[in-house]
Amino acid sequence: MSQSIASLFQRLTQGVYVIGVADGETTNAFTAAWVMQVSFDPLLLALSINSNHASYAVLSRGRVFSVNVLGKDQLAVAAHFGQPAGARKLATTAWTTGQTGAPLLADAVAWFDCTVTDQHPAGDHVLVVGRVVDGRLLDPDATPLSYRDTGALDGAAALFPATFGNGSR
Amino acid sequence: MSQSIASLFQRLTQGVYVIGVADGETTNAFTAAWVMQVSFDPLLLALSINSNHASYAVLSRGRVFSVNVLGKDQLAVAAHFGQPAGARKLATTAWTTGQTGAPLLADAVAWFDCTVTDQHPAGDHVLVVGRVVDGRLLDPDATPLSYRDTGALDGAAALFPATFGNGSR
Repeated sequence: MSQSIASLFQRLTQGVYVIGVADGETTNAFTAAWVMQVSFDPLLLALSINSNHASYAVLSRGRVFSVNVLGKDQLAVAAHFGQPAGARKLATTAWTTGQTGAPLLADAVAWFDCTVTDQHPAGDHVLVVGRVVDGRLLDPDATPLSYRDTGALDGAAALFPATFGNGSR
Repeated sequence: MSQSIASLFQRLTQGVYVIGVADGETTNAFTAAWVMQVSFDPLLLALSINSNHASYAVLSRGRVFSVNVLGKDQLAVAAHFGQPAGARKLATTAWTTGQTGAPLLADAVAWFDCTVTDQHPAGDHVLVVGRVVDGRLLDPDATPLSYRDTGALDGAAALFPATFGNGSR
């Protein structure tokens, strides 16, 4: 790891989201920060996901995902959905589905329901682009959680290379 | 425009950046919020840019860009670089160049110097992926500016479609 490169990248401002995926009856959800809007018309979001993640296989087959926005008092929800896929993370959480079948969390600040339009390999992740087919602002008064405020919750500092020049790929 | 769709998308957390572009001696810079990390190894950032923007032509030819992170007291800098390209925005700003030749702002909180690795059309924008070849944290004590805190600075609320289903493409 490189503490200084990790510190630098902490200056990029991101939120914290629970990404829901579905392929028929198979569902899963995981915590992510690498989400942003990429187009106004059509309304598109991009998500960068590790293709070794169990949820990526579900997303790739089902071609739908949801983006559930967490609020600043939902650090425990972020930690819960940051667990490995075997933990049956959705079993203890209230959720429903909408147009796409991807899980929509009842207690999110807001959610976006998306169909996959494109996938692009991007280094050790895959950039997934989705069209927002529906969305809901559930708690207008909540302040969204910032990824920076989660500190070392996800251990990401260990994932940065030591220098800019020495990427292994 | 749709106030409710704009309000929903405000719950996505983004920063505020000045994106520098260069093609030889030709340079430009503009304010953007749609920037995120997409890979650890190699270190990749993605940027979504309007392909009608004058800076996009420069980026496309030069295949380099910088991401300059603005701090919460730099709203005036965001407004300055949000002007149209004809304004010679870099003429009144202290900047230098590094490995790629893209403009690096002297007063940024941090900067990332990037070479373009991929471009993917994404609705009314283009998703540009860049490898971070160098970076610097200039002001470790500054709090990065959040896009949400810029309010209606960029008039983006007018760019959202009225409904989810009625995209024109």
